Formats: sequence, C-alpha cells, structure tokens
Amino acid sequence: MASRICDSVLVTGSNRGIGLELVRQLVDSPSPPVQIFAGCRDPSGPRSQALQELAQKHRDVITVVQLDTTSLTSIAEASKLVETKLKGRGLNLIINNAGVNVPGSLAETGIQEMVDVYTTNVVGPMLIVKDFHPLLCKAAAQFPHQTNMSCKRSAIINVSTLLSSITRCPENFSVSPMYPYRVSKAALNMLTRCLAEDLKKDGILVMSLHPGWVQTEMGGPKAPLTTAESISGLIKVIASCTEKDSGTLLDWEGKNIPW
Amino acid sequence: MASRICDSVLVTGSNRGIGLELVRQLVDSPSPPVQIFAGCRDPSGPRSQALQELAQKHRDVITVVQLDTTSLTSIAEASKLVETKLKGRGLNLIINNAGVNVPGSLAETGIQEMVDVYTTNVVGPMLIVKDFHPLLCKAAAQFPHQTNMSCKRSAIINVSTLLSSITRCPENFSVSPMYPYRVSKAALNMLTRCLAEDLKKDGILVMSLHPGWVQTEMGGPKAPLTTAESISGLIKVIASCTEKDSGTLLDWEGKNIPW
Repeated sequence: MASRICDSVLVTGSNRGIGLELVRQLVDSPSPPVQIFAGCRDPSGPRSQALQELAQKHRDVITVVQLDTTSLTSIAEASKLVETKLKGRGLNLIINNAGVNVPGSLAETGIQEMVDVYTTNVVGPMLIVKDFHPLLCKAAAQFPHQTNMSCKRSAIINVSTLLSSITRCPENFSVSPMYPYRVSKAALNMLTRCLAEDLKKDGILVMSLHPGWVQTEMGGPKAPLTTAESISGLIKVIASCTEKDSGTLLDWEGKNIPW
Repeated sequence: MASRICDSVLVTGSNRGIGLELVRQLVDSPSPPVQIFAGCRDPSGPRSQALQELAQKHRDVITVVQLDTTSLTSIAEASKLVETKLKGRGLNLIINNAGVNVPGSLAETGIQEMVDVYTTNVVGPMLIVKDFHPLLCKAAAQFPHQTNMSCKRSAIINVSTLLSSITRCPENFSVSPMYPYRVSKAALNMLTRCLAEDLKKDGILVMSLHPGWVQTEMGGPKAPLTTAESISGLIKVIASCTEKDSGTLLDWEGKNIPW
C-alpha cells in the first residue's frame, strides 16, 4: 500500500481550478489523508457546488471550511474548527492556493489593482501561516525521532507561478505583462524564502510550487496542461520533497525555477 | 571638464538620508545637472530644513517639489510643475528613492504593515513611472541619433537593497527578518524587470540599485558605509550604466546582485 502523503492537509481556494483538483486527487489517492480541510470563501455559493458534491461523497475525509484568507476573523474561526476536528493532533500540511489575477498592463494597473492582488496573493498566505503556526508546530513535534523535514511531517506550500521568476521575466513578459500578478508572486517567493528560514527551527518545510500553465478559469483554454496532469505532478513533488527543497521554487515536474 | 551625468533628474524622498545626499553630490559635482527636482512629502516641515537650505544655495539648479509618491493628486501636480520648469524638454532621470521600513518579525507583521510598506515601496514607484512616462519618452527622443540607453538619455533607478535578494535571504534573514520590507523590495525588483522589458521600446533604461548598508536614520549607526561613500559609488554606477545593465540589480560598486 502506498504511503500516505500526510495525515491532515488544508487547501485554500479549493472550490475550483487547481484547489478543487488537489482535493479530488488527494481524496482519490490509494492512501488518502485522514483529514482534508477544503477552505473556500463562500461554501454555500453556486461556485462551490462541485466541492460540496465531492465533500458529500467523502464525508469521513473532507471538511469544507469557510475561509476568506484576507479576513483575520474568518481565518481565526477556520483554525478553531480545524483544531477541534484534529482532536489534539497537529496539522501536517497547508497548501496556500487561494489567489487572484487581473489583466494588468501598465496602463491598466493602478493602486487598487496592485494592493488588492498583493493582499490576496501575499498577505493572505502570511496571515494563514501566522494563525495556523501552532498546529503546524504540533504536527512537527509529533515526529519526535525524525529531524528531517517533509510534507508528511509539517509543511507549507505556496502556489506560485513561472511568472514569479524575475530571472525569466524577459522570456514571457510581452506575452502577458500582468504587473499586479507578477509583482505579487515575486513577493510571495520572498515570503516563502523568509518563512523557510524562520520556521526551520520548528521543523516546518516551506516551498513555492509552480503548477504549470493549466487549463483553469485563470489559465484559459490555450494552456498546454490539463488540471489533472498538473495536479498529479504536483502531488508527486509534494510527496517527495525533503528539507533540501525548503525555500525553493519547483515546478510540477520537480524542476527548480530560478528566482 | 567631466561629462554631465544628465541634464535633468528627479529624486524622490530627497529630504534626508540617501535622497538628500544624492541631491547634494549631484549639485556639487564638477558638471552638475542643469535641473534637479528634489521631491519630498512635506517641503515646509522641520524634517526638510537641510534640503531647503541646500536648495537656497543652489537656486538655479534645485527645485524642491512637494511629492507624496502614494498620492495620485500630488504626483500629478508635481509632474505638471516639472514639465513647466523643463520648458519643452524631457526629463532624463528618475531616482525612486522614497521608501519605508518597519521592524517586522513574523509576530510583528500584520495586514497593515504589509500593505503600507508595499504601497510606498512598490506602488509609489509604479505611479511615478506611469505619470512621468511622457517626460521620459520625450527625453529619450531628444537623442535621435543614439539608440543606446543610458541615464544621460532616459532612465529610471529604483532604490532597492541587498535584502531584496531572494537568493541571498538565508545569509542575512536571522540578522534582520523585516518581512514587510524584504517582501516589498523583492516585489520592487520584479517591477524593475517588468518596466525594463516594457520601456525598452521607448529607449528608457530601468534598474534597481543597492546603496549598501548606510549610516542613515534607516540604516542606523552600526552601518559600515557613510552616506557620502555610498552615494559617491552610486553616482559612478548611474553615470556608467548602459543598456546591458537595464533590468538588473547592482550595488554601489557596480557589482551584480542575484535576484
């Protein structure tokens, strides 16, 4: 029997696209996590129907959690619920997937676009980490004889993008300027790197992952990867990463992307 | 006689620290710019006294400009004033120096700290570039027989920091966590890189510069470099950079810093 990727995981923005497919493939895996917390902003809204149906089918594993990652109140309530459901155990893995994009040529970009996208894509993951930190520490401490880091033990995955790479910007800028998105995702990579340094004392692995250019609502129909292909790759990367990967940006095939 | 670094330059946040020393060394150089626009938020406040005294001594060169880089109204009024003073000529160089820092361990950092620092350090420079873009284009076009880029022709310098380097974060994170500052400056580097790609069609050079760790109010007394040493180096780098440097991050000695 395949080894379990981890006992418990929280996926933010899990009602569609990459988040929904992550929850689907995690629950359908040969050895699924014991508990999957599927965070989404509006669990009773029409855009969460597919997630609700999936959760109905796997009531013993999936808990849908109302979670607006930019609201301190919503985060605090979500973490309280997760803590209760974990019954004294820690939370092994957080996948900060909730994010937004806006078109964003220079002409189209103003204060509001810059601040809104930054708040969701960078400040949100930071607030989640701050609030769930004790649960991640608890999970790490539940592996007393293991000093290595892994997603099985305790980890934070920030969903980033190739477009976050300052090094590779000249290759793809003209195709998709996206100022607010690119700038926010470079900032998210710095957050990843800072957290990786900060939380290694707690045994928590922190990485950025690029899911590829995927056929989602955000990626559009021209994208070369199906959501299923991307997530299948991402899950393999998540399952196999070790502390040497902490503080890096890898793609869905495990290849390193330069900052 | 030494060649003039450029005919006209705008320095933001020029009432103290690096900004003030930039204006001082530029005006004191053997062949100073014809016009120096010294932007600061509160020109009549007590913290602008040194700048006002310097401007009094060099009334023919320095124009103090009220400029809050996060206010669209203030930027629009400043660019109108600069345009009038330039009497039909373009603006050669903008040095986006205005910036803030806050202590910023993870525990100390919340939504407000993240958004405020980002707005000043990243959104401000973007707003300045958007508004002054026509004046930079005009300056670039005034060199019709020159296709090379330079600060003499038309350029944007974003004042960044070694702490913006995601690559080098593990070396210095523990000394100074500074989440809001580091994350904002990595974002600023992406803005630099995007603008360098976007504006090369207009002949505008765009770079990030690290002034070193300097004995300013922000840098503190333990810093190894005096402001004078740092700025003397920065001015040499500014004077000598060419289009091969566009889209890069260099330090005050002209050495490349990895993203």
